[in-house]
Amino acid sequence: MRMMIVSAISRDTSTCHVLGRLLVDLAAEHDGVEIDFVTPADVNVPPNDGTIPWDLPAAVAWQARVAEAHCHLWVSPEYHSGMTGAMKNLFDYLAKEPLAGDVVGLVALAGGAMAALNTLNGMSVVARSLGAWVAPEMCALNSNDVKDGLDERAVGRLRSMVTSVVDMGRRIYEPPVVVDPVI
Amino acid sequence: MRMMIVSAISRDTSTCHVLGRLLVDLAAEHDGVEIDFVTPADVNVPPNDGTIPWDLPAAVAWQARVAEAHCHLWVSPEYHSGMTGAMKNLFDYLAKEPLAGDVVGLVALAGGAMAALNTLNGMSVVARSLGAWVAPEMCALNSNDVKDGLDERAVGRLRSMVTSVVDMGRRIYEPPVVVDPVI
Amino acid sequence: MRMMIVSAISRDTSTCHVLGRLLVDLAAEHDGVEIDFVTPADVNVPPNDGTIPWDLPAAVAWQARVAEAHCHLWVSPEYHSGMTGAMKNLFDYLAKEPLAGDVVGLVALAGGAMAALNTLNGMSVVARSLGAWVAPEMCALNSNDVKDGLDERAVGRLRSMVTSVVDMGRRIYEPPVVVDPVI
Amino acid sequence: MRMMIVSAISRDTSTCHVLGRLLVDLAAEHDGVEIDFVTPADVNVPPNDGTIPWDLPAAVAWQARVAEAHCHLWVSPEYHSGMTGAMKNLFDYLAKEPLAGDVVGLVALAGGAMAALNTLNGMSVVARSLGAWVAPEMCALNSNDVKDGLDERAVGRLRSMVTSVVDMGRRIYEPPVVVDPVI
Repeated sequence: MRMMIVSAISRDTSTCHVLGRLLVDLAAEHDGVEIDFVTPADVNVPPNDGTIPWDLPAAVAWQARVAEAHCHLWVSPEYHSGMTGAMKNLFDYLAKEPLAGDVVGLVALAGGAMAALNTLNGMSVVARSLGAWVAPEMCALNSNDVKDGLDERAVGRLRSMVTSVVDMGRRIYEPPVVVDPVI
Repeated sequence: MRMMIVSAISRDTSTCHVLGRLLVDLAAEHDGVEIDFVTPADVNVPPNDGTIPWDLPAAVAWQARVAEAHCHLWVSPEYHSGMTGAMKNLFDYLAKEPLAGDVVGLVALAGGAMAALNTLNGMSVVARSLGAWVAPEMCALNSNDVKDGLDERAVGRLRSMVTSVVDMGRRIYEPPVVVDPVI
Repeated sequence: MRMMIVSAISRDTSTCHVLGRLLVDLAAEHDGVEIDFVTPADVNVPPNDGTIPWDLPAAVAWQARVAEAHCHLWVSPEYHSGMTGAMKNLFDYLAKEPLAGDVVGLVALAGGAMAALNTLNGMSVVARSLGAWVAPEMCALNSNDVKDGLDERAVGRLRSMVTSVVDMGRRIYEPPVVVDPVI
Repeated sequence: MRMMIVSAISRDTSTCHVLGRLLVDLAAEHDGVEIDFVTPADVNVPPNDGTIPWDLPAAVAWQARVAEAHCHLWVSPEYHSGMTGAMKNLFDYLAKEPLAGDVVGLVALAGGAMAALNTLNGMSVVARSLGAWVAPEMCALNSNDVKDGLDERAVGRLRSMVTSVVDMGRRIYEPPVVVDPVI
């Protein structure tokens, strides 16, 4: 099973990128999960303002890369109560429901004590629109806590969410038998 | 597997109730699914304004009834861009995450051409807060279309959503083997 | 100018009611503002599940009471990521856009550190649907902080929001001259 | 008074750009309103993925341009249930609450009959986070209707929203006298 982990921030010293790499470690605790770590710099598509050809090679490559994934973890800082435009821009290059049947886990980072719930909500609406099942265990974290090193409880919440995503992914993509015989 | 179907409107001539009963029929197409059809009149709890004892017999009975369900379909008209307060009031009697591991399918009805998306969004936030997985195939319907009799395409969308909920419910509650061996 | 302040909780020992009464005090700091403090117990309408006649005397009285207000402050605890059903139920008795041209300020209370943003969001969608302008200075508070007595900073945020609502209400309802001559 | 009109799409043959120019015409019906029409191509900032210096000349120029506006109209197509990432990316270059005291009117375009309500909702959350008052008269339009030429009713709805934004902007920025004497 293939897990795509997207960090909205490309700079590897950022708390978002650090958190993305922690998610990589947590996903790697599960047997048989291949991981694809993605940043906007890595995908390298321009802002999609309606002037970009849909066969832009970078876009086509990105679409193919997404098509290979079964599970997804997205992490974004809160920029003005939403995921970053740079992250949303990646999804804007995808066709209708490319994540149908996939599972998505969401993480958002806010600068203060205020939880990044609006960002999680917005990410959830987009994920659902892409056709995915969204894990109910969303994580809103304080970026200062990430900077200081997350405590066991926060890591536990993230691990629990990653496990939920992997587990649901297996139920969908690695089912042992046909499960729903309709009359 | 047990499916709870909640109609926000208790009056059986309403389009919401009619639609709820159609969902009952669609769920009954699946083998081995027991159905529990619920309306606010049926649950019969007063508005929870902080003056109601938590051991109110009707509330305790309602909590037990919810605890028995594995899958849920909720149908509500759009009242001022949200599910009805009477429906939300039912959920206000439930404790923290009583739907953890359950699957919810959502249907909303609006009076005009304008799709009831805000209502679906609000229902989705509440369902997630109750711990549930929300099926991405939400249905926004025009109540006039329900009145006139839904066409095959609309029934097909509803059937597809119900199948998705039942199928995911089986994957969670009737898995043939342990599916995620963490290292 | 008339300000309606709605507390979702009727019990006067609740943090929500306490906060509602603080809002009354803050609104009373403004000259010429008449205040109408409302709770669900006070309005006394049953859950609107489609079986209630629209000329129910309590509902008609409530509609008339709302029609007299120019500004509104709503305070609700977060119940499963939304305002309470009992509060939403009050609004379900209102006709289309009864708050057109009015101004609404929103306050939500959550039990823990997690800010009640989903609740504010949901309240905002409903307020807008009722036709109102929503003050951008929404307040999410921790109910434990209310219990312990709010500090100066939190009271300052509430005062600032109330002032913003009153000020905008005056600009709309007490303008000295016609302000927008269209060509 | 200065009105900024932002089209999420830069291509002038797109329905979004066409609609943006209609908004320019509607705003120009009001006396004394200076209009600044903006597209992403025009602002020309790269995706903000945390690797861009905050003193990037294009970003600084954009911030200054936004600071001059009092009212705003935003129009975006629905891309996977949200405004485009390219539009959100523009706002990601702004500091905290740069629109405090400003008024924003929102328009979203969806490809089918389904109204672009999720997009309006997301835009509203971001506008509020930037400090702005959001006009309750949001417009969700079918892009096919824009292509065919909007009928009088749709143009009327847009005109009404633009008037509401201009009128509220005047009440805030061109008040004849001090309006709220706090005791």
